[in-house]
Amino acid sequence: MTDTETLLIALAARVQLLEDQLDLMRIISAYGPAVDSGESAAVAGMWTEDGVYDVDTGSLRGHVEIEAMVLSKPHQSYIQAGSGHLIGPPHIEIDGDIAVATCHSQLVLHEPETGTYRVARITANRWEFARVDGQWKVTLRTSRLLDGRAEAREILAAGVKN
Amino acid sequence: MTDTETLLIALAARVQLLEDQLDLMRIISAYGPAVDSGESAAVAGMWTEDGVYDVDTGSLRGHVEIEAMVLSKPHQSYIQAGSGHLIGPPHIEIDGDIAVATCHSQLVLHEPETGTYRVARITANRWEFARVDGQWKVTLRTSRLLDGRAEAREILAAGVKN
Amino acid sequence: MTDTETLLIALAARVQLLEDQLDLMRIISAYGPAVDSGESAAVAGMWTEDGVYDVDTGSLRGHVEIEAMVLSKPHQSYIQAGSGHLIGPPHIEIDGDIAVATCHSQLVLHEPETGTYRVARITANRWEFARVDGQWKVTLRTSRLLDGRAEAREILAAGVKN
Repeated sequence: MTDTETLLIALAARVQLLEDQLDLMRIISAYGPAVDSGESAAVAGMWTEDGVYDVDTGSLRGHVEIEAMVLSKPHQSYIQAGSGHLIGPPHIEIDGDIAVATCHSQLVLHEPETGTYRVARITANRWEFARVDGQWKVTLRTSRLLDGRAEAREILAAGVKN
Repeated sequence: MTDTETLLIALAARVQLLEDQLDLMRIISAYGPAVDSGESAAVAGMWTEDGVYDVDTGSLRGHVEIEAMVLSKPHQSYIQAGSGHLIGPPHIEIDGDIAVATCHSQLVLHEPETGTYRVARITANRWEFARVDGQWKVTLRTSRLLDGRAEAREILAAGVKN
Repeated sequence: MTDTETLLIALAARVQLLEDQLDLMRIISAYGPAVDSGESAAVAGMWTEDGVYDVDTGSLRGHVEIEAMVLSKPHQSYIQAGSGHLIGPPHIEIDGDIAVATCHSQLVLHEPETGTYRVARITANRWEFARVDGQWKVTLRTSRLLDGRAEAREILAAGVKN
């Protein structure tokens, strides 16, 4: 190879890594809009076919269970009253075809009786991704309430410690 | 063209798309700091000359009307008391010289009497951009309260459904 | 140099600037997870050895003082009860080997007695970075409460006005 070709290949690898970071940010930034509008297929489609969403209250496996959560009575009552699943800027680590993103999320709910809003919860999140057929998909999202439980702090620590 | 030139042109197009995404993120991330510090020209300058900011309470067209909102008594009373227009990570779709970003926003207000803070509202946002003379500008921002109204959910859904 | 080499060098400079932006976002996005999990070394390691964290309540200089803040009784009581230091998307300006990022932050606290969450404060932040041995490090972070004080608005304005 010529020097120019070598440089070009190295540059293409750097561009690929930038694209991966922005792709992962794009996927994560769709979660809130999808879940607060009840777009259950868009929510579930973020995960692999048998991907897992492990929440404090239990574990959802695969598109059917994740869609069912979005379509469930409790979730529908949130979004009918007005809800915001806000997500902090994800901290992303990529290693070839797998990636981990760590971030906070915050659920804000509208209270129709009083017309006010309240922070219903803050949560620690770990998103594990795999590149499947050229597309990043969530294999496991683990979410734990930031209510003092050690598990939530461990999720955050795992994402940032060296 | 040689193979190297062809590769270089393809790589330059990928870099352009990454630059577009980060430029759009940079513009959107300026909104909160500008509006909470009363920098009315910086706020209005995000829009095209005749760009529209369509809010629940009415529609503002062009720099003069958008600046007037920032300089208005209600907005000034917010920022004098302490306000935070926080924005969720935008979900961006680019198609050549136009782009759409979808995100939540949250208004947190300081209450001087009690020294406390409260979430005053959460909002669904759709930002439509055009590239004008090589610069991304907002042509239309539509914001609707997440208080249960269907319009707000429709804004979020439009940004993420396939 | 050939035309191809000239193009390649220009493209590499654009890629470097994209990498810088994403590196800075990656660093800032680690702050919340690190501080809410008590990872004091990860927090302090964001700063240069003698970097400064200038908060309303005083100024911390260097890794030892920043670590001590994370390990302090007040901070530990926050995280033991459940806390979220959420950060808005940073607005980044890079100039060679220095950079400035401007953003909001929000502290949400869990109240164990009631099981509720409240926004304890919103803050204006200016992060000044320098590239040291090829790595971006915080030289100065200035944070001021958005409680109406002019200083906080000045921080936000400085980051976005032209």
